[in-house]
Amino acid sequence: MNLTSDNIAPAHPAVLEALGAANSGPARPYGHDEENARVEALLSEIFEKPVAAYLVTTGTAANALSLAQMSPPWGAVIGHREAHVMHDECGAPEFFTNGAKIVGAAGLDGKLTPNTLGALLGRDFWTPPTHVTPSALTLSQATEAGTVYRPAEIAALSEVARAHKLRVHMDGARFANAVAATRASPADLTWRAGVEALSFGFTKNGAMAAEAIVLFADDLLAGLAERRKRGGHTWSKGRFIAAQIAALLEGGLWLDLARTANATAAELAIGLEARGFRTAFPVESNEVFVWLPAALHEALQARGAGYYVWTSESIASDRAGRAGEVIARLICSFATTSAEVAAALAEIDAAASVAEGGRKRASRSPGTPLF
Amino acid sequence: MNLTSDNIAPAHPAVLEALGAANSGPARPYGHDEENARVEALLSEIFEKPVAAYLVTTGTAANALSLAQMSPPWGAVIGHREAHVMHDECGAPEFFTNGAKIVGAAGLDGKLTPNTLGALLGRDFWTPPTHVTPSALTLSQATEAGTVYRPAEIAALSEVARAHKLRVHMDGARFANAVAATRASPADLTWRAGVEALSFGFTKNGAMAAEAIVLFADDLLAGLAERRKRGGHTWSKGRFIAAQIAALLEGGLWLDLARTANATAAELAIGLEARGFRTAFPVESNEVFVWLPAALHEALQARGAGYYVWTSESIASDRAGRAGEVIARLICSFATTSAEVAAALAEIDAAASVAEGGRKRASRSPGTPLF
Amino acid sequence: MNLTSDNIAPAHPAVLEALGAANSGPARPYGHDEENARVEALLSEIFEKPVAAYLVTTGTAANALSLAQMSPPWGAVIGHREAHVMHDECGAPEFFTNGAKIVGAAGLDGKLTPNTLGALLGRDFWTPPTHVTPSALTLSQATEAGTVYRPAEIAALSEVARAHKLRVHMDGARFANAVAATRASPADLTWRAGVEALSFGFTKNGAMAAEAIVLFADDLLAGLAERRKRGGHTWSKGRFIAAQIAALLEGGLWLDLARTANATAAELAIGLEARGFRTAFPVESNEVFVWLPAALHEALQARGAGYYVWTSESIASDRAGRAGEVIARLICSFATTSAEVAAALAEIDAAASVAEGGRKRASRSPGTPLF
Amino acid sequence: MNLTSDNIAPAHPAVLEALGAANSGPARPYGHDEENARVEALLSEIFEKPVAAYLVTTGTAANALSLAQMSPPWGAVIGHREAHVMHDECGAPEFFTNGAKIVGAAGLDGKLTPNTLGALLGRDFWTPPTHVTPSALTLSQATEAGTVYRPAEIAALSEVARAHKLRVHMDGARFANAVAATRASPADLTWRAGVEALSFGFTKNGAMAAEAIVLFADDLLAGLAERRKRGGHTWSKGRFIAAQIAALLEGGLWLDLARTANATAAELAIGLEARGFRTAFPVESNEVFVWLPAALHEALQARGAGYYVWTSESIASDRAGRAGEVIARLICSFATTSAEVAAALAEIDAAASVAEGGRKRASRSPGTPLF
Repeated sequence: MNLTSDNIAPAHPAVLEALGAANSGPARPYGHDEENARVEALLSEIFEKPVAAYLVTTGTAANALSLAQMSPPWGAVIGHREAHVMHDECGAPEFFTNGAKIVGAAGLDGKLTPNTLGALLGRDFWTPPTHVTPSALTLSQATEAGTVYRPAEIAALSEVARAHKLRVHMDGARFANAVAATRASPADLTWRAGVEALSFGFTKNGAMAAEAIVLFADDLLAGLAERRKRGGHTWSKGRFIAAQIAALLEGGLWLDLARTANATAAELAIGLEARGFRTAFPVESNEVFVWLPAALHEALQARGAGYYVWTSESIASDRAGRAGEVIARLICSFATTSAEVAAALAEIDAAASVAEGGRKRASRSPGTPLF
Repeated sequence: MNLTSDNIAPAHPAVLEALGAANSGPARPYGHDEENARVEALLSEIFEKPVAAYLVTTGTAANALSLAQMSPPWGAVIGHREAHVMHDECGAPEFFTNGAKIVGAAGLDGKLTPNTLGALLGRDFWTPPTHVTPSALTLSQATEAGTVYRPAEIAALSEVARAHKLRVHMDGARFANAVAATRASPADLTWRAGVEALSFGFTKNGAMAAEAIVLFADDLLAGLAERRKRGGHTWSKGRFIAAQIAALLEGGLWLDLARTANATAAELAIGLEARGFRTAFPVESNEVFVWLPAALHEALQARGAGYYVWTSESIASDRAGRAGEVIARLICSFATTSAEVAAALAEIDAAASVAEGGRKRASRSPGTPLF
Repeated sequence: MNLTSDNIAPAHPAVLEALGAANSGPARPYGHDEENARVEALLSEIFEKPVAAYLVTTGTAANALSLAQMSPPWGAVIGHREAHVMHDECGAPEFFTNGAKIVGAAGLDGKLTPNTLGALLGRDFWTPPTHVTPSALTLSQATEAGTVYRPAEIAALSEVARAHKLRVHMDGARFANAVAATRASPADLTWRAGVEALSFGFTKNGAMAAEAIVLFADDLLAGLAERRKRGGHTWSKGRFIAAQIAALLEGGLWLDLARTANATAAELAIGLEARGFRTAFPVESNEVFVWLPAALHEALQARGAGYYVWTSESIASDRAGRAGEVIARLICSFATTSAEVAAALAEIDAAASVAEGGRKRASRSPGTPLF
Repeated sequence: MNLTSDNIAPAHPAVLEALGAANSGPARPYGHDEENARVEALLSEIFEKPVAAYLVTTGTAANALSLAQMSPPWGAVIGHREAHVMHDECGAPEFFTNGAKIVGAAGLDGKLTPNTLGALLGRDFWTPPTHVTPSALTLSQATEAGTVYRPAEIAALSEVARAHKLRVHMDGARFANAVAATRASPADLTWRAGVEALSFGFTKNGAMAAEAIVLFADDLLAGLAERRKRGGHTWSKGRFIAAQIAALLEGGLWLDLARTANATAAELAIGLEARGFRTAFPVESNEVFVWLPAALHEALQARGAGYYVWTSESIASDRAGRAGEVIARLICSFATTSAEVAAALAEIDAAASVAEGGRKRASRSPGTPLF
């Protein structure tokens, strides 16, 4: 099995076809082409209002540029303390904001709550200019734990943020999966719930490399073109990012692919639960975090099974691990098939029997030397 | 005609084919894939020594990352004052170096000379810590004026740089064109002449978006992976940058395409000279800077002809413009055909006859009101 | 009472005398004067080895410059999560390091322990280049909780840091108080225990504004002069920072003043404990954190008593507050007299009797409207 | 002689007296003290309108903070290409603006003209987002060449700046000298002529270390407290910067001292001209740039005479040097006496006779070997 990430997948064939279709004749450079216009039109349709979109090719760039538009260098960006933007971007938000502080808050299942957010923002240590000033809230949708926020949850968090004068950003590296999971409209999950800028991720969704910074607040536009350019993220042949996104947006392919990935992950979770395994987080999108006994984990590693071992301090007590267990993060992409899930489960069965054998042999003859 | 830039061209078909070929099954993310390894191997072959390569998708990123590896925040990067890195990257070098000074030096035909470089570096105002410390030299090959440095010229400049403890970078957004033009080996144009890092551009050459930071000095490696990551330039599906470059490198396609672009530009220059037009710079690669009378320029603009009007303070006196003339920058890409060149010349002829007609009408009856 | 901070104090008269003595005739600018040389000599004597010293005028500058010498932009600086450098410098470390991450670790009484540090550094999420790389440990001596590290504690923490390739910095805004408290030698508290750079604070100690960045590791020197200059911290008339420090160092005045401040704080703590008040942290230097009942706090506020209300998550369970209590932070400076401490205690007594009266009145007649 | 700079001078006695007077009892920290309020009141009086003032201790900090308030990271700050802010602050403006471009323009005698400024801003290469956007103009008053702008000159430059949407900053490290020289009112030299922020320098004027960022435009206030804090420039015992400035402002001492320095420089210039020496720039404030024959220069150096050798590309043709001449920069401070000027002239006479002797000996016997 190789379920290490949705970024090990190739691109969807429709994306490559679209690149081919766009690959003809001259086009205006730097995003002033027809494909970019088409992407903005498609996004405006999907979000049910006119939006501006700046296209880049990594989620790190989309997040860091968005946050830089929202936070001065002496600002604080608040997010879940296990969010991607906190730990997995090598300080990109600090770099693009020119030194803002990225502050992590706790929350079960990878999610912030209005209470913890309010408590953090209500603390007395934010007095300027001695302290940095909270300037932006960033929500991951789906979260790093694979869970999703419902529209009402986002709205409640946004309200707390707004009450403290924070702008609201959404890291939607897996936004499509969240839309598919919640069956909510993209508008309800974003601007209608107070989100002002969205990093809309298409790379994990099926693109080669494409992310859209979607702006719902006009005042966030000023300077973004300059920031993108000086960040080295303005492609001269910009049509080739736009074409990928257009291919996914048209006809709702993005949602179909996300539904597929979510469904495959659900199959995997059901299979694991049927075998008595417990998950560390609710399985709501395309990620499964499952507790594995150490011996099973070792047996799987020995077989070359591909997944990350995870650690988290945001696990609910009724999902806590037991002594010796580790969390395996298993991710299904649009390209993961039911057959691959079945094979992965079979591989776990096989490894389990070896592990069990080992355990039995070890326990069967505690006093007998093995060799 | 549309000769505004080589970045309006599509990608070469072989590039798209390579993307398709790479688009199968899972691959290790973040550049740890087979395609990236292949690119390093191909580059090592071409440069006749083992090199490390970090792939990104814009020349701005390649240049800024390279220079950040060479210059502390209190350093000065020296380049030609009309270089791309000086004016056309919205401060990317300042951003990635965390505030180094980018200092422009003069030089005819877009080229620096050892004398001017030595004089600049020899000036007494570089005393630290009051002043910034010159830390890197960046040479554009081909230059912003379409001219090229010969190996001996590069070596002489590098020697001056090294004598003042500067590192040497080459902005090779059109490196292929320079190799084709000089018929020198890539090694002779780079590390054998003292260049320590090269932004090897493939986008203008025929890629969709692909540039390689090629390192010839081992000590420049430390921290580059981190800088690229926090700059948002580390693709998760990294194979798709590498595949483009591999497609161009294999079988020498990159050089064939550059030769084509150079040859087409030469045809254009010959055609223009045959019509009595003068060029502002020697035509050495795929760019033609031609003086146009104002009336002709206006007539061309009226017809919708696509080119940039250029200004420069680095024109040799024997190529200086005359009153009312403007410089048109005409660029041929790998995709520009001889037929397009012929059509462009015909368009100029047609516009010239209109302009001439206008001029004659105007001059015929100086004392007579036209209406 | 006004015990808000040791930075509300004036300068010690000897400091002003020294400024007067230095104020004669021309002197070489930018720190190349005799006073600066004298400071380096005095510091070398006190630290029992030759040290380099860079003088600035705020602790924020001393800390941020020191950390910038130790951490690349993609580094992580580890410190106690309630340290000054984490919360009270408006992001100065992020600014001077060009965007490093400042990571807070927990620890009772404001102190880090080798165990928590080791656990944090041993976590698996530091893999470069996805994550930032821990680069420096910063220890506050005395801590923000007024406690002090003993030499063996510092050595143990340094050892953990060194094992993970971190540099070790000490924020000594109240270093003098820590030396006085521990009766350890400055050398034992710093370089002999693995500290490589010290922000040696003199402002709170009795200077007008003077802090020395003391370097114990030669390789930390390169670039510091440039960083200080471009940070705007290189005084042209540098003798006037140096003269302040020399005045405090000579004859051990700095230690006398710190002993005075510590002793006065001890008197205050004893007086408070005699009245039944409990402290939130051990009183080890010149800061007293005392739990006050809400009514008493309000009565004191009404009288205009000067102190900060504190909050902390690093209080030992046996010192925890009770319902309605708040922590008052009371700081004694070199200028605080025993008479002022007595007056402060008397003020607390007076306020307590008012508060008690109020409480009694309120409780005496629960059913009777007060007005 | 030691005329290297006005920053080698001590502080004026009144400044030290004021420090002593301020050194009593507690004061609110971080600039919220009475002395700071007094400085704002005094400045408001002098500038004939209410102004906000942020105090720091170096001109570098005052300039860099001011420019950071005016220019986004993708902005360009335009100044004279030989200005202090261009060359002598080790990239502080780049650091505090987070990477803006500092662009130098030419101009005789260290001064910009509306024509050159307009031509520069009118050039076509400022198109965003490819290029940085001119955001601020900085004028040095007095200039680095010791010349001064008249109110009408400033107004004309400001008008050009405003027409191109640039903010206007004045680097007044020697503002007092300029006020004394022009006999114009501070208001006429600043906000009435379009200046929006002034770095009002007191260090060279007679302070120990004190500079005021004076803001004439309310919208420039937001964020400045945070920038100063995170730059490490917010003194806890802020009264001690303010007291220096108040001492100089009260009773017009600042102007008296500047008049003295200007007058002494004038004496020096007259003495030099009487001896047949020519100046490289008009002597308008407290700096004298005089051409010295190489032999005289060497003789003076041999005697240990203190001055800087200067180079400039902004010298008017009728003041150009002759073969072998060097420019000596001689600066008079408030503390320079007429006696010192006389002694300096005598020293030059003495050196000249030695040099002349040498020259005569050398020229007397061209054919005769000297040994």
